[in-house]
Amino acid sequence: MELKLTGAEIESLVQRGFGADEKMFTVEELRAGFARIRLPFRPRMLRPGNVLSGPALFTAADIAMYALVLGHVGPVLMAVTADFTIHFLNKGMPGDIVAEARLLKLGRRLAVIDVALYSAAAPATLVAQASGSYALPQGA
Amino acid sequence: MELKLTGAEIESLVQRGFGADEKMFTVEELRAGFARIRLPFRPRMLRPGNVLSGPALFTAADIAMYALVLGHVGPVLMAVTADFTIHFLNKGMPGDIVAEARLLKLGRRLAVIDVALYSAAAPATLVAQASGSYALPQGA
Amino acid sequence: MELKLTGAEIESLVQRGFGADEKMFTVEELRAGFARIRLPFRPRMLRPGNVLSGPALFTAADIAMYALVLGHVGPVLMAVTADFTIHFLNKGMPGDIVAEARLLKLGRRLAVIDVALYSAAAPATLVAQASGSYALPQGA
Amino acid sequence: MELKLTGAEIESLVQRGFGADEKMFTVEELRAGFARIRLPFRPRMLRPGNVLSGPALFTAADIAMYALVLGHVGPVLMAVTADFTIHFLNKGMPGDIVAEARLLKLGRRLAVIDVALYSAAAPATLVAQASGSYALPQGA
Repeated sequence: MELKLTGAEIESLVQRGFGADEKMFTVEELRAGFARIRLPFRPRMLRPGNVLSGPALFTAADIAMYALVLGHVGPVLMAVTADFTIHFLNKGMPGDIVAEARLLKLGRRLAVIDVALYSAAAPATLVAQASGSYALPQGA
Repeated sequence: MELKLTGAEIESLVQRGFGADEKMFTVEELRAGFARIRLPFRPRMLRPGNVLSGPALFTAADIAMYALVLGHVGPVLMAVTADFTIHFLNKGMPGDIVAEARLLKLGRRLAVIDVALYSAAAPATLVAQASGSYALPQGA
Repeated sequence: MELKLTGAEIESLVQRGFGADEKMFTVEELRAGFARIRLPFRPRMLRPGNVLSGPALFTAADIAMYALVLGHVGPVLMAVTADFTIHFLNKGMPGDIVAEARLLKLGRRLAVIDVALYSAAAPATLVAQASGSYALPQGA
Repeated sequence: MELKLTGAEIESLVQRGFGADEKMFTVEELRAGFARIRLPFRPRMLRPGNVLSGPALFTAADIAMYALVLGHVGPVLMAVTADFTIHFLNKGMPGDIVAEARLLKLGRRLAVIDVALYSAAAPATLVAQASGSYALPQGA
């Protein structure tokens, strides 16, 4: 599997696609079948109990899957999540969210990916584990 | 199943728990086994293609499940999502997100819930369908 | 949505496809967007505790989804499950398994379905709730 | 994490629990946080197209999760699956099914596990990937 985009290209592609003024996340590593992204901590990511919220973890997992798909199929912004499952395992300490996505399958129509989620504040603790599919546009 | 809280009580409980200045969502309906909430539209809910984003839909589903749990077990803010699965079905037009949560099981340790998600801009179209479990604190 | 096959046609299609000597299941109801099938009780469906096993419930859900897909897209035996999620809710008493499948989306490439599972021995108790996607062959 | 049972003890515990006359599966490897089991090929595991069926793969994943739980918490036959999600990735060639289960979390109430599924006939191809939770009896 040859990569079609660099991490920096993915970052700016998404930033422009979302009309964002600043970098939304960092692609820390991108290689065949794997991507690791980092989502910077924001106070609004916390929920009562001072732990990372479900929506914040979902967002990080979604970005990691999207970055992995873009890296492998090129700039197809219209790829969309088809299904997504997450198990929440341990409290996520306040900190950047690190998401490691692993490509399980890249078919013509679907990419299937799993994602391990960590807080940068406690990198040895798996906070959540997710899996999901991306529907790829025809002719991608 | 007797309800332990009203919709208005749930709204203010969550608002205070999150330290929010304004109402984050509305509980439109709450009865035994069912809750419907509405999450007001914000431009940041959109992703390229002008459709409701996955994280915005996840957030609405999570709130609906949480409201349903609080309504049935009382003010246990520490109830946490254990697992969550979502299928994205149709594009969500820009609008408030309406989430209808249905209680499938209320056990001592887990509540299992499914959620149907709609955009108020196109209420006849099912945008996504989710299911998940909430882990209940012991002695709840 | 017009139906392409009757319940009896689906039963015999699957029986022949599997090289089975006898009817494997009954399609009790089939209409636009809905199918209910019944899987006859076999002692090997039980696990310790005398309750319906996970694999038996999975099998019934899978058949209901498959019957619903065949009914709506015609005799495409090669349609395959892409993903499947199930929550086990209550003990399933020994009895026929009844599975009610509801079509959430019928796209060109994917059908998304949810399934409610019951034991005929205690028809008021929801035993499990499932959801999943079927990948449809191109040109189906 | 100390193991409470050996693979051979798990095999005979399950065989007796199910009243089976012969060994149903083999625990090929069991260590802290990991179990690999093998389910012997039976012709009834195939579906049209001569590939391993969904129910056969589900069965193997369920056994691997169960063996992993028993190995870590001891002979609690009443541990039950709470939720289960599977993505089917590639056709499973006819052969023994090998399931590798990895413990993501062992809490007091839930064990969360993911499972990779292979056919022994094509061991380099990931056939399916699953994740799920086991509800542990109180006081286990």
